[in-house]
Amino acid sequence: MVDNLGIDFLSELVGTAMLVLLGCGVVANVALVRTKGFNGGFLMVNIGWGLAVFAGVIVSYASGAHLNPAVTLGLVANGATSFGSAATPVDVNFLSVIAYIGAQLIGAIIGAVFVWLAYKQHFDEEPEPANKLGVFSTGPAIRSYGWNLVTEIVGTFVLVFVVIGFGGGRQGDGGLAALGALPVALLVIGIGASLGGPTGYAINPARDLGPRIAHAILPIKGKGTSDWSYSWVPIVGPIIGGILAGLLAIPLLPILT
Amino acid sequence: MVDNLGIDFLSELVGTAMLVLLGCGVVANVALVRTKGFNGGFLMVNIGWGLAVFAGVIVSYASGAHLNPAVTLGLVANGATSFGSAATPVDVNFLSVIAYIGAQLIGAIIGAVFVWLAYKQHFDEEPEPANKLGVFSTGPAIRSYGWNLVTEIVGTFVLVFVVIGFGGGRQGDGGLAALGALPVALLVIGIGASLGGPTGYAINPARDLGPRIAHAILPIKGKGTSDWSYSWVPIVGPIIGGILAGLLAIPLLPILT
Amino acid sequence: MVDNLGIDFLSELVGTAMLVLLGCGVVANVALVRTKGFNGGFLMVNIGWGLAVFAGVIVSYASGAHLNPAVTLGLVANGATSFGSAATPVDVNFLSVIAYIGAQLIGAIIGAVFVWLAYKQHFDEEPEPANKLGVFSTGPAIRSYGWNLVTEIVGTFVLVFVVIGFGGGRQGDGGLAALGALPVALLVIGIGASLGGPTGYAINPARDLGPRIAHAILPIKGKGTSDWSYSWVPIVGPIIGGILAGLLAIPLLPILT
Amino acid sequence: MVDNLGIDFLSELVGTAMLVLLGCGVVANVALVRTKGFNGGFLMVNIGWGLAVFAGVIVSYASGAHLNPAVTLGLVANGATSFGSAATPVDVNFLSVIAYIGAQLIGAIIGAVFVWLAYKQHFDEEPEPANKLGVFSTGPAIRSYGWNLVTEIVGTFVLVFVVIGFGGGRQGDGGLAALGALPVALLVIGIGASLGGPTGYAINPARDLGPRIAHAILPIKGKGTSDWSYSWVPIVGPIIGGILAGLLAIPLLPILT
Repeated sequence: MVDNLGIDFLSELVGTAMLVLLGCGVVANVALVRTKGFNGGFLMVNIGWGLAVFAGVIVSYASGAHLNPAVTLGLVANGATSFGSAATPVDVNFLSVIAYIGAQLIGAIIGAVFVWLAYKQHFDEEPEPANKLGVFSTGPAIRSYGWNLVTEIVGTFVLVFVVIGFGGGRQGDGGLAALGALPVALLVIGIGASLGGPTGYAINPARDLGPRIAHAILPIKGKGTSDWSYSWVPIVGPIIGGILAGLLAIPLLPILT
Repeated sequence: MVDNLGIDFLSELVGTAMLVLLGCGVVANVALVRTKGFNGGFLMVNIGWGLAVFAGVIVSYASGAHLNPAVTLGLVANGATSFGSAATPVDVNFLSVIAYIGAQLIGAIIGAVFVWLAYKQHFDEEPEPANKLGVFSTGPAIRSYGWNLVTEIVGTFVLVFVVIGFGGGRQGDGGLAALGALPVALLVIGIGASLGGPTGYAINPARDLGPRIAHAILPIKGKGTSDWSYSWVPIVGPIIGGILAGLLAIPLLPILT
Repeated sequence: MVDNLGIDFLSELVGTAMLVLLGCGVVANVALVRTKGFNGGFLMVNIGWGLAVFAGVIVSYASGAHLNPAVTLGLVANGATSFGSAATPVDVNFLSVIAYIGAQLIGAIIGAVFVWLAYKQHFDEEPEPANKLGVFSTGPAIRSYGWNLVTEIVGTFVLVFVVIGFGGGRQGDGGLAALGALPVALLVIGIGASLGGPTGYAINPARDLGPRIAHAILPIKGKGTSDWSYSWVPIVGPIIGGILAGLLAIPLLPILT
Repeated sequence: MVDNLGIDFLSELVGTAMLVLLGCGVVANVALVRTKGFNGGFLMVNIGWGLAVFAGVIVSYASGAHLNPAVTLGLVANGATSFGSAATPVDVNFLSVIAYIGAQLIGAIIGAVFVWLAYKQHFDEEPEPANKLGVFSTGPAIRSYGWNLVTEIVGTFVLVFVVIGFGGGRQGDGGLAALGALPVALLVIGIGASLGGPTGYAINPARDLGPRIAHAILPIKGKGTSDWSYSWVPIVGPIIGGILAGLLAIPLLPILT
């Protein structure tokens, strides 16, 4: 069982690194000065994040491709008793939950580092510190912690509810992989286009905190604050939304699917 | 049988709420001031609505995912004798048709309320009342009830005809789910891009009336009229288009598919 | 056999009408004044045409969904001995080829009429005659019959070659349906994006000639010329390209697939 | 076995010609003056290249659709012992690797020639030599050979790692076809949107060198330099990235998938 947990740990780490590399990458392409995709539009950002999930799920089959603490905790709330694929199952307990979330966070940091390397010159030439932080972490269009929290809760609820609804949350491999790489990519494109307007749709604490840590640590030329005052919103909101989805899916989805 | 109808009622309600949450959400993102997707373009709206259908169909398997009175009535016109999945079939009669349509309408109102919550600050800051209503309900580019009606009839005809054509309208589960979540999403993107120009493609009475009721009821800051004088067009047009498609499919589709 | 040909005739007619309704519809949305999709961009046109093919293929299963004389003639050149689905096969001979092409042309005219009805007010308000014709038929960005012909040949070659390559041209149902509705939609989006720049990618004589006839006949307010001097290019080019693809596929594809 | 290698050679040649025809075609449409897709945006370029891969994979089944020396060498590094489909397998050895790469290069040159023919008039009217070269080959947004190399390594690593991760690199047919035409198309759209900003994502030595050779040879009106000083970056970077992915996949992917 320890071996399986090690494999699933690595699987979540690699998958989340891939997710953040391509996800934060598309923001870099649209936001940083002198890139070829500069000012490419919000739909391009949505599609880039959706395909980032797509690639992340493909290389994270062993662990069920949660890639997101809100998914992991939503599945726990839904009553899951095991995580991971049929070949590498692990019991759901404090250790495995911590392992999943830890792997997601470390993977997200690693992915963000490679975004910085791939766009190194554009970070160097970008004059605006806020644009640099925006590549790594989300920020609200209109700052208001309460309403920003509501938006993140709603967006994450949709993500986790649909994933559980489709894949069957009570099954052992009920992560993003349960929905399939393409459907979950489409779902994330849809959530971004529809509910990403106010906060930039973190809907994933690891996706936001990991790159924020990377932003704080990396020697990025001319970087400003890492905006830690906002950082709890894209952590707490998605966790609440994911758990609510997991709980509501218990009475609803056995009869809906 | 009453139990099945209750399940299908809940299924339509949840699916239509999801549809309207993501569908009206993308309009909010594109239309309201200071969002991250502001001015994202009509294609982004089309894609957002298509993926809204996608998510709605996924969580509405039990009832066959009509999510639209025009689909329900089109199937009736086509001669359907039962609704819902194989696990939860219901006979087609006055009660079940009313239950489906009622669930769709209630679900649409609920979905619209959550759009307002998710975009609360942007509604507050938006100066233009027409943009606020536009998030909830459709309106014509050039007002002319007769021609607006024609456009809605043509658009809904395409939706219902293709859905019946693919899924087999006479089968018990012949709703949007019969076509499959991805194909029906693509179909809705296509109808929006191609036939949405004049009226904003309601092509669904519940999608338009439900949010319009929400707009009338909710304490939206600085809202204007709910434009009830136009409201019958996106109800009557889609019903006519759906019934025409159901009727025309009787002689055509048994030989075409 | 006469019955099968009648069914396949109707199938091609309905499928091509659906193709042109959604295909010319997206051009109307992007090109005509005061639509909601005005100036939506070339990618939106490409996606609209791709999804038009998607919908057309879905409702044209019986005949194999050629929807295009260049596909029909390409299959003949490839040596096809029968058309249509397994349930409604017809021998390939002069009569069936004429029936297929005739149905495509009539369907294209009907589809174009409904585009005009759906966008009636926008045609009325549009000041520029060239934009009205552009909804119906293609025209070159830089007029030069020889090079325009080359572009249409290359684009149609790609369409027919990939369709035959995937579906097996020598099989009885080797039309667009052989590739599947989604793949052929993606292929058409790709051809439009990549090879549509110089001539607007007719790549289908019926898609161009049918709506041009509709443009000539319909009482469109303030319409100008139907540009018959160019009309032979999107007929001859696609036919050459389709036949070349069918011929080249004979030696190449049996070993490539 | 010689026969199989001949078939696989032809398969790679045809598939890569299709890839470059549609891929460089979309750049021509967006970059050259007076095209209908002029200034269509980077997302349109990404989608065009993704669908170019899609079409190329469909017509290159026999060889496994590598279409890219970085994929071929990545599979070698991963320990592949045979290439091609089950019907036409070839042993991996110096000769077959050279045959694959040679076919890709020749195919890329052929594809580029047809792009020039399809856009002939637009090349003639385009005043800016750099735009003409940009249709054929990639160039950096900010020239810095070291960092440009890093970007190409990262992008190609993602491509080859995901392809091997999904398809199983140790299987005989582990090329792009192993992932499937649609998933690999989506992957390439994602890599382009996310990592294409700094260098225009060659991520394929044949895709860059082949068209550059075509640019140097063809009698393009008013063409400038073929920028040979940069040409080694999109060759060396992708080769390093592909081999790294193949090597890292050995320990990681047997446990991840």
